[in-house]
Amino acid sequence: MGNSFGKIFRISTFGESHGLGLGVVIEGCPAGLPIDEDFIRTEMQRRKPGQSKITTQRKEEDEFQILSGVFEGKSTGTPIGLVIMNTDQKSKDYGHIADKFRPSHADYTYFEKYGIRDYRGGGRSSARETAARVAAGAIAKLFLRHFGISVQAYVSQVGELKLEKSYLDLNLENTENNIVRCPDKDMAEKMIQLIEEVRKSRDTIGGVVSCVAKGVPPGLGEPVFDRLHAELGKAMLSINAVKGFEYGSGFEGVKMKGSVHNDAFYQEKGRIRTKTNFSGGIQGGISNGEDIYFNIAFKPVATIMQDQDSINEAGETVTVSGKGRHDPCVVPRAVPIVEAMAALVLADYLLISRTNKL
Amino acid sequence: MGNSFGKIFRISTFGESHGLGLGVVIEGCPAGLPIDEDFIRTEMQRRKPGQSKITTQRKEEDEFQILSGVFEGKSTGTPIGLVIMNTDQKSKDYGHIADKFRPSHADYTYFEKYGIRDYRGGGRSSARETAARVAAGAIAKLFLRHFGISVQAYVSQVGELKLEKSYLDLNLENTENNIVRCPDKDMAEKMIQLIEEVRKSRDTIGGVVSCVAKGVPPGLGEPVFDRLHAELGKAMLSINAVKGFEYGSGFEGVKMKGSVHNDAFYQEKGRIRTKTNFSGGIQGGISNGEDIYFNIAFKPVATIMQDQDSINEAGETVTVSGKGRHDPCVVPRAVPIVEAMAALVLADYLLISRTNKL
Amino acid sequence: MGNSFGKIFRISTFGESHGLGLGVVIEGCPAGLPIDEDFIRTEMQRRKPGQSKITTQRKEEDEFQILSGVFEGKSTGTPIGLVIMNTDQKSKDYGHIADKFRPSHADYTYFEKYGIRDYRGGGRSSARETAARVAAGAIAKLFLRHFGISVQAYVSQVGELKLEKSYLDLNLENTENNIVRCPDKDMAEKMIQLIEEVRKSRDTIGGVVSCVAKGVPPGLGEPVFDRLHAELGKAMLSINAVKGFEYGSGFEGVKMKGSVHNDAFYQEKGRIRTKTNFSGGIQGGISNGEDIYFNIAFKPVATIMQDQDSINEAGETVTVSGKGRHDPCVVPRAVPIVEAMAALVLADYLLISRTNKL
Amino acid sequence: MGNSFGKIFRISTFGESHGLGLGVVIEGCPAGLPIDEDFIRTEMQRRKPGQSKITTQRKEEDEFQILSGVFEGKSTGTPIGLVIMNTDQKSKDYGHIADKFRPSHADYTYFEKYGIRDYRGGGRSSARETAARVAAGAIAKLFLRHFGISVQAYVSQVGELKLEKSYLDLNLENTENNIVRCPDKDMAEKMIQLIEEVRKSRDTIGGVVSCVAKGVPPGLGEPVFDRLHAELGKAMLSINAVKGFEYGSGFEGVKMKGSVHNDAFYQEKGRIRTKTNFSGGIQGGISNGEDIYFNIAFKPVATIMQDQDSINEAGETVTVSGKGRHDPCVVPRAVPIVEAMAALVLADYLLISRTNKL
Repeated sequence: MGNSFGKIFRISTFGESHGLGLGVVIEGCPAGLPIDEDFIRTEMQRRKPGQSKITTQRKEEDEFQILSGVFEGKSTGTPIGLVIMNTDQKSKDYGHIADKFRPSHADYTYFEKYGIRDYRGGGRSSARETAARVAAGAIAKLFLRHFGISVQAYVSQVGELKLEKSYLDLNLENTENNIVRCPDKDMAEKMIQLIEEVRKSRDTIGGVVSCVAKGVPPGLGEPVFDRLHAELGKAMLSINAVKGFEYGSGFEGVKMKGSVHNDAFYQEKGRIRTKTNFSGGIQGGISNGEDIYFNIAFKPVATIMQDQDSINEAGETVTVSGKGRHDPCVVPRAVPIVEAMAALVLADYLLISRTNKL
Repeated sequence: MGNSFGKIFRISTFGESHGLGLGVVIEGCPAGLPIDEDFIRTEMQRRKPGQSKITTQRKEEDEFQILSGVFEGKSTGTPIGLVIMNTDQKSKDYGHIADKFRPSHADYTYFEKYGIRDYRGGGRSSARETAARVAAGAIAKLFLRHFGISVQAYVSQVGELKLEKSYLDLNLENTENNIVRCPDKDMAEKMIQLIEEVRKSRDTIGGVVSCVAKGVPPGLGEPVFDRLHAELGKAMLSINAVKGFEYGSGFEGVKMKGSVHNDAFYQEKGRIRTKTNFSGGIQGGISNGEDIYFNIAFKPVATIMQDQDSINEAGETVTVSGKGRHDPCVVPRAVPIVEAMAALVLADYLLISRTNKL
Repeated sequence: MGNSFGKIFRISTFGESHGLGLGVVIEGCPAGLPIDEDFIRTEMQRRKPGQSKITTQRKEEDEFQILSGVFEGKSTGTPIGLVIMNTDQKSKDYGHIADKFRPSHADYTYFEKYGIRDYRGGGRSSARETAARVAAGAIAKLFLRHFGISVQAYVSQVGELKLEKSYLDLNLENTENNIVRCPDKDMAEKMIQLIEEVRKSRDTIGGVVSCVAKGVPPGLGEPVFDRLHAELGKAMLSINAVKGFEYGSGFEGVKMKGSVHNDAFYQEKGRIRTKTNFSGGIQGGISNGEDIYFNIAFKPVATIMQDQDSINEAGETVTVSGKGRHDPCVVPRAVPIVEAMAALVLADYLLISRTNKL
Repeated sequence: MGNSFGKIFRISTFGESHGLGLGVVIEGCPAGLPIDEDFIRTEMQRRKPGQSKITTQRKEEDEFQILSGVFEGKSTGTPIGLVIMNTDQKSKDYGHIADKFRPSHADYTYFEKYGIRDYRGGGRSSARETAARVAAGAIAKLFLRHFGISVQAYVSQVGELKLEKSYLDLNLENTENNIVRCPDKDMAEKMIQLIEEVRKSRDTIGGVVSCVAKGVPPGLGEPVFDRLHAELGKAMLSINAVKGFEYGSGFEGVKMKGSVHNDAFYQEKGRIRTKTNFSGGIQGGISNGEDIYFNIAFKPVATIMQDQDSINEAGETVTVSGKGRHDPCVVPRAVPIVEAMAALVLADYLLISRTNKL
C-alpha cells in the first residue's frame, strides 16, 4: 500500500534511487488530451538535481519514455506508463552506510517495517521518487490547463528569512527568474546567500513553499473525509521532508475572531464571490471559486556533511559521515513537486465532480 | 466518495444534523475485541454539546445503538453498524437561512456541487457528523489499548493564548479536569475567561489542539503517498474548521539547521531510540517508536451571533442573522474528535503492518 | 473488507440475521434523484420471506427507515443511510447448533477465519443481508430508469426443469405472475410442483436465474480487470448459494466456431448494432448497446429438514437436525437480488463513464 | 479505473500490444521473498506466442526487466516495477483495419467509450496485456509456494471434446507434456487434431480451462461481496475471451438435491475435512481447507482468417479480412494466465487474513 495516489486520475509510482529505473503508471487520464512531451521534460528539469549552485551537484538526466497510453500524440484513456531509467547511480557512495541508520532518515524505520532495506541512497524513501510525481503532475497540469486552471508554487521562506507578503502582492511570474524560486528579487538574493552559507558550513536548512491554484471552479471537493484541503494536505505531507501544511488563514487564523475571519459573499458580474478569502478558496471542504492557497513546511535536509553519532543494525554505536552530493536546502527543487501534487489532486477532483449531479 | 476513511480498519459515516439519524459502519475491526459500550458512551460525552458553559447549549443526547458486528460483548470481525438517532432537531431554527448562504459555511459550496442541499443545520457538513467518528474512534482506542498504544489530545491555544510548554512538560492527566481541556490549570482559566468574553460579544475564536500518541511500535506507516503523518494530517484536516496540521518540529522546524534538527540514534535497554524527537516519532513516513505528536489549527466558528451581509440562492444581497445555539470556540469539544481520528489511523496502520513481512 | 461494493455508486452493508438490525450506506448516488420509497418497499416485498407457499414461512417485515441522504424526497448526494430493524429473530431456534458446524454452511469457515462467530441464523453469512442489497438496488434502479435502462431477471431452471427458450422468446412481463417467477406459465407450474415435492421430502433443490439489461448505452465498462462482465460476475457470485455465472454464449459458446460466434456489425437507423448477440452485449469488457444477458447457477439450499452427520467445535461427531423455516429452493426469492446487484453495477459504471473523455 | 487488481497484494498493469512496451507494478508483495527470475521467465514462456504449431506463430520474446522492489535477490516490500519492451510489433499489419470495427472485438466499444483508440493489434484490449499478469502471477506463486499452496490449471475442453473426468482422476503432472495442456494423453491428441483442423479451415474454436488450488488453509475469503469465489470469478472473467465461470458443483449443481450436495464434515488426523467437495473448497465465500477447483469458459477467438461484413467509423459497410498471426484456440496459452490470476487472488487473501483476528 501507499504507492498510489488519487481516486480516478490515479498514479502509482515505483522505483528506488539506485535500482535500474523508476516510473509511474497514470490511470484515469481522460482520452483525447494532447500529451506535450516537451512540457513534461521542462517540468522535470525544474526538479532535476544539479540545476544550480544551491542544489545537489548530482547529475541525473531524468530522461523519460512513455511506454503506453498515448497514441498519435493524444491520451487514449488507458494507463500511461512512463519510465525513467537510472543512469548515474554511484551505489558505491553508500557502501559506508549499508548497515548504519542515518539520523532522521528512513533507514531505521524501513528496516523495522520490512526487516530488509535497499540502503543505496535511501532506496524507496529517496526523494528521487518525486521525479515520477513531477512527470505525472505535468500531465495533470495539461489536463487542468484545458479547463483554465493553473497551479503555481514558490519559495516563501528559507530558515528565518520569511516573505511577509501575500501572494496577491507578488508577481509570481518572477518565480522562475532566480535559482531559489522566490518571486521577490531582493528576498531571493538573501535566501540564496543564506543557503550558500549553510552549504559551506556543511549543514542544511529548512524552508516553506507556498502555492496558489487559480481558476478552480466552485464545487470541487468531497464531504467529510475527502475534503479538498484534506486531500491537498495529504498530498503535500507525502512529499519528502514536509512537516506541516496550512491553507487559507492557517495557523494564524486561530488568533482571529469569527466576525473578522468570515468571508462575506457578494456578487460580481453574475458570479458569487467573497470579499476576503481567509477560507483559502475552500469552504466545507469544497472549492468556492476563489483562489486556493496554502503553505508547506520543509525541515532541513537530514543528510549533512558532518560526522554524526548513530547506531548500526547490530545496535552498536557508530559514526555516520556525510558523503555524496546533497541539497543544502530542499525548497527550490520542491516547488515543481508541490505543483505536481496539487495538480494531481485538482485533476482528480475535477473528474469526480462530474458524478455529483443527476 | 469521501464518506469513508481507512484501508482495513475502515469507517463509513452517514447522516445529517437534522435527518432521522446518523451513524457509522466500522469494517475491519478484528474479531475478539471486547466492545465496552460504556467507554464508547464516555467518549461521546466528551464531544457532546451542552457539556459546559463554554460550549453550545444545544441538547443532543447522542444515545447510540450497535446494530451488528458485536456478539456476546465481543467484535465478530463483521461490520459494526452503529446508529445515533436525532432527537433534538429544531429544524425550524433554520428556516430563516433556507435559501441564504451563510458566510464561511459550506452552504454555497454544497449548493454548487450538488445543485441541492439540506439546509437544516448545515446538513452533512455539520460537525454533528463527528459524533459518529468519536463512536468509531472509541472502538479503535479499545483496539490500540490492547497493544499498549494510547492517544491523548488537549487544547494548547485559544486565540492568542498559547501554551508554550511542550507536552513533555505537562501532566496530560489534568486535561479533563477543566472545561476547556487544557492540562495547565492557569492557562485553562485564562482560556475559559477569553472564550466567555468572546461569547458575550456574540463572536467566536479559533484555537489549537495538540495530540500525542504513545506506545506506537516502530514500523507503522506506508512509503511514499500514505506516509503515517500524511494520513494523520488528512485525518485531522478532515475535521470541521481545521486550517492546518504540523507534526514534530512543524513550521518552527523550517528555521532549524540539519545539524540541530537531526535526531541522533542511541540504544536504551536493547531498544533503539533517538536523543531528540524533532521527527515527531515518524521518519520517512514510518513510526520509529518515539512519541508521535502534532498540532491542529482550528479557525473561529463561522456561526456568529451577529448580522452579516451575504447572498441568497437568487443572487440577492441579504442579511444573515446568527440564531440557534453554537460554540464560541470549537477546540474543547474537538479534543475527543482529534483523538478518535488519530486512533483510527493508528489502528488501521497497525493492521496493515501485519502484511509487510513474509 | 468485503462489505462494500462499487467504486462511485458504492454500497456498504452491515448486519446479521439476528442482531438488532441491518442496513446499508449508499454513497455516490447523484443529487437530485427522486427517491420513491414505495418502489423500494415493493422491491423488498419481492425478496421477503413468507411471500408464498414455496418460500420459507419465516416472517420478516423488512420495514426500512431512511436516516439520511434524502431531503424533500430527493437524494442530496450525501450518503443514504438505510436501516432495517430485526423484529422476528427467534434466536432460540439456533441454540441447538451453537457449537455445531452445519454442512455446506459458513459455520466452520467463519469460525476458522475469525475464531468467533455469531451462530444465530448464520450471522453475517445469512441471506438476510441481501435485504439491504435489494433496498440499495432499488435506488440504483431508479437512477437507471432515469436514463432508460432496465434490468429484469427471472427463473429459468429449477433442478432438471430447464426453460430452453431464450429471453427473446419469452414475455418477461409475465415473470411476476406466478410465485416461482418463471415467465413461461407451463414451466412455472411444473417448477412450483417440483419445489413442493422437494419441500415435502424435507429436501432442497438448486436452480438458475437469468437476467437481461436493456437500454444500456455503448461504452460502459472498464478495460482489463474491471470489465463490465467481470464486475457483473463478481456481483452475482457474491450472492448466497451462487456457484456459477455465464454471459452471452456462456459455457455453450465454447463449442462454437469463431465464424458462427462472431457478431457481425450493421447499421440500423444511424445506430451501430450487431446481427447476432453471442457477445451478450459486452465486447472487450465494454457494453456495445445490445441487450446484456447472463445466467446465474444457485446450488440447493444447505439447510435441509433432515438429520446430517457433522462435527462440533470440539471436533466431536454430532448430528445436525434441520429446524426453523427455510426455503426449499432459493431462486424465486433470488430474482430481485440478482436485479439489485446488476442495477448497482450498471449505475456505478454509468457514472464512471462520465470521466472517460476530455 | 480497471487496470489494477487486488487489495493488498495488488497489481497495476499498463501497455498496449503495439506501444513501446508494457508492464506491471506489483504492490504489497511482502519483504524478504526470494524472487526467482528464472521461474518468472519459465511462466512467461508458457504464455508466449509461437510456442507450438497450435498457437499463433507471432514472435514475441517477452524479455522482462525488474526495475525496482528487488534488492540482492529478495523483495524489499516496495513496489516491484517490471517492464516488457515490445520488439516485434508489425504495426503495419493493422493499417487495413484502422477505421474498421472487427466483429466481436473491442474496437467498437473502445471507440464509443473513449472517442479515440489505438487500433494496432487491439491496443489495450489485446491479450498481450496478460504477459504482465503472468509475470506478476509468477511472483504470487512464489509467495504461495512459501506457504505450501499450489495452483494448477489445464485444458479440459476444446469445442465438443470434453474431458469428463474430475481432476481427482487425472495426473496433472502430465499437463505440460503436450502442447494443448490437457493432462489426458488421448484426449490431448484429439484436441490437438481438432485445433489443427479448425486452423486449416481458417476458423477458431472455444474451450474450457479447469484449475485446482491445493494447500489453501481454511479461513481465506471475505464475507458478503468479496467472497473468495467471487473474487476468483472476477479474476477469471477479466481474462480475454472468457464467457463463464463456475466453481465446485457449478452449473451441474443446480440439478442436485441438498441432501446429496451438502458436504458432510468429519475429522481426519485432527483436521476438519468434508467427505465430498461439491462446495469446491469454499463455503460462505471462505476457504474450508479442501481443494478449490473451478472451470472457465473461453469463446472462440474473434480473429478468423475469413472475410467478414462489418462497419467502419463512418458507418459504412466494409469487409474485414483476417490477417496477421492469431491463435485458432486460446485455451492452451490461457492455462498460465488462469494460474497467474488465481495465484494473485490467493496471495492477496492470504495477506488479508492476517488482519482478521485480534
